[in-house]
Amino acid sequence: MNTVKAYGAFAPEKDLEPLDIERRTISENDVKIDILYCGVCHSDIHAARNDWGNAKYPIVPGHEIVGRVVAVGDKVTKYSQGDLVGVGCMVDSCQECSACHDDLEQFCEQGMVGTYNGKNKHTGKQTFGGYSTSIVVKEDFVLKVPENLDTKAVAPLLCAGITSFSPLNHWKIKKGDKVGVIGLGGLGHMGIKFAHAMGAETIMITTSPDKATDAKRLGADAVLISKDEQQMAAHKGSFDFLLNTVPVKHDINPYVQLLKRDSTMVMVGAIEPLEPLHGGNIIMGRKRIAGSLIGGIKETQEMLDFCGKHNITSDIEMIDMNQINTAFDRVTKNDVKYRFVIDMESLKN
Amino acid sequence: MNTVKAYGAFAPEKDLEPLDIERRTISENDVKIDILYCGVCHSDIHAARNDWGNAKYPIVPGHEIVGRVVAVGDKVTKYSQGDLVGVGCMVDSCQECSACHDDLEQFCEQGMVGTYNGKNKHTGKQTFGGYSTSIVVKEDFVLKVPENLDTKAVAPLLCAGITSFSPLNHWKIKKGDKVGVIGLGGLGHMGIKFAHAMGAETIMITTSPDKATDAKRLGADAVLISKDEQQMAAHKGSFDFLLNTVPVKHDINPYVQLLKRDSTMVMVGAIEPLEPLHGGNIIMGRKRIAGSLIGGIKETQEMLDFCGKHNITSDIEMIDMNQINTAFDRVTKNDVKYRFVIDMESLKN
Repeated sequence: MNTVKAYGAFAPEKDLEPLDIERRTISENDVKIDILYCGVCHSDIHAARNDWGNAKYPIVPGHEIVGRVVAVGDKVTKYSQGDLVGVGCMVDSCQECSACHDDLEQFCEQGMVGTYNGKNKHTGKQTFGGYSTSIVVKEDFVLKVPENLDTKAVAPLLCAGITSFSPLNHWKIKKGDKVGVIGLGGLGHMGIKFAHAMGAETIMITTSPDKATDAKRLGADAVLISKDEQQMAAHKGSFDFLLNTVPVKHDINPYVQLLKRDSTMVMVGAIEPLEPLHGGNIIMGRKRIAGSLIGGIKETQEMLDFCGKHNITSDIEMIDMNQINTAFDRVTKNDVKYRFVIDMESLKN
Repeated sequence: MNTVKAYGAFAPEKDLEPLDIERRTISENDVKIDILYCGVCHSDIHAARNDWGNAKYPIVPGHEIVGRVVAVGDKVTKYSQGDLVGVGCMVDSCQECSACHDDLEQFCEQGMVGTYNGKNKHTGKQTFGGYSTSIVVKEDFVLKVPENLDTKAVAPLLCAGITSFSPLNHWKIKKGDKVGVIGLGGLGHMGIKFAHAMGAETIMITTSPDKATDAKRLGADAVLISKDEQQMAAHKGSFDFLLNTVPVKHDINPYVQLLKRDSTMVMVGAIEPLEPLHGGNIIMGRKRIAGSLIGGIKETQEMLDFCGKHNITSDIEMIDMNQINTAFDRVTKNDVKYRFVIDMESLKN
C-alpha cells in the first residue's frame, strides 16, 4: 500500500478537507496513474453530502480523471509509462455477465465498482476517487486520451461527455437529424457539441433566453425557449431525437410533443420522480421515452477518439484543490460554465 | 343517399336508442357492406358519453365491424359481392403524408377519419359507425376476413385485436421471448393469445389472483400477481417486453423494474396522466417506455391473416342491438369476458 494525498468529506454536513488515503500497490493487470486533472461532477456533491443515502465516510469524490501512467503491472499490454490516460465512473465490474460481455459494464449484473464509494475488489475496502494525487486502476478500465486535445478540458469527458455521447451514439444520430438538447449545463453543453459534430441540426431547448448566445457558440443551430408556447407549437412533432439533461423533477409532456412519430427522448439527468406523463402523448405517434447511464468502457474510448478527431473538449473553469468547497456551492447554483476542473498540481505542492 | 337503421346517442347523458341515418351511395372506389356483427369497444362508451369532449350528436358508435360485401364501385379491384370483410377504427386518411406512405394511417398527419364521429370526406358530414345495418367504406380501408374463423368473434379483432397485435409485431416479439401482458380485459386477453401464438413465454400480469385460471386457458404460461412484492421481486429484470393494457391511471414503476436492460414496455390503454415515473427506473438498464395506437391498414390485414393461420379470435358474449345500454354498463364495470358483440340481425328485423 502507498499513502497518497487526497481531499474528502468525513460527514454529510462537513466541508471537504485534506486527508491521506491508501492506494494498493499495482498487481499484474493494474496501471498506476499520476493524476493531473479531475473534473467536478454534480454526483460528487450528492455523494459527499449523502443525498443518495449510500455514502461511506470518508468519501473521496472524483470520477473525471486524467493523468499520466507512471507504472504498469507485468501483464498490462495496452499502456506504458508516460501514456496520457483517463478514468471515468467505473474502475471494475464482474467482466462475466451478459452486460459486461456486451461492453456495457455500467449495467453489470453484479454491480459495477464505482470509482469512489464502491467496494475495491482487491482490498475489500472502499474505493477512493480522483480528488487525489494518484490512483491504481485495472487496465481494462483505463482509457487512452488523445494527445492533441487540451488535457485539462478532457477530464469532464469521462462522465459528462460519455453520458451525453452514449445516447446520441446508441440511437444512431446522423447527418440531417433534428436533435434537441434540453437543458444547458455540464451534460447539455456536451450534448450540443456532440450532436453538432455528428452533423445533426442541433436545437438548444432551454427555459432561459439568456442562454441563447452561449448555446450558439457551442454549436446549436437554433434555440427553442420552452416557456414560449408559440415557439413550442411551431416545433411540435418535428424532432428526430431529444436528449433530456434536466437534472431535477420536471414536466416532460411538452417535450414529448416535440417528437416526430416513432422518435425517442432519452433521459440522462433526472434520477428522481418526474411530473406525471400523459399516456396519450406517447400513444399518439408511437413515441418513446428511454433512459441512458454513462456508457461502457468500449464506447467511452470511442467517445474520446471521436473527441480527438473532432477536437471536442469541455468548457471548463480551473480551480485549485483547496477551492473545492466553493466550487461545490457554485455547482449547486448552476454557476459554472460548464465544468470545474481541479488542477491536481495544487494538491501535490 | 340511403337511409339505414342504426342505434345512437343524442346527448351524453342519454341511453342509446334507434335512429335512421343516411349512408352515401357508393362511388367508384367504395365498398358497400351489409353489417353482420359489431363489437362493443370501451371507446364507444367514452364517445357516446362525450368523455373526450369532442362528441357531435347524434353519435352512432361501432368500429369493430364484420360484414358481407353487397356492392362495389367501378374501380374497386380487391373486393366483390359476397366477400367477408371487416372495418376497424378508420375509414379514410389523406393517403399522401409520410405516415400514410409508411402504412401508418392511424398517424395520418392530416388526421385519420374515424369510423364514427369523424368527418366524412364525401359528404362533409359526420361519420356513423357500425351500430347499424349497413356501411359504405373506401376500398383501401376495408379488410379481408379469413373465412375459416368464427365470424362473430372476428369483430373485436378490428380494434382490440390490432391494438394488441401491433406493438408485439412492431417490436418483433419472437419465439422464446419472455413477454408480460399487464391487465386482463379486451386488449389483454388478445395480447395473451397473440404473444402465445408468436412463441413467446407469455406471462399474465394482474392484480387479481382470480384471473389466473382464465389467463392460462387463454394461453398464458404463468400468472404474476402484481400486488405480491415477493413475486414481483422474483421476476425483476427478466422481461424482454411488456404490453401494458391497463386503461386507467396507474403506477408504472413496478412494471418498468420487471424489464431487462434495453427492453420496452408499450402502453396501449391509459390515455390519461400516469402516476409519476421515477427517472432512475429507465436510466438504470437503459429501458424504454413507448406508446402504440391501433395499427395501419396493412398491419391490420396482417393481423387478420395471422389470426386465420393460428385460428385466433376474441372471446365474446353476443347481444342483441337493444341490449346495448346494459352492455355499456357492464363494460364500465369490467363485467364481460372479454368483448360484447352485437348480432346485427337483431336490428334488421
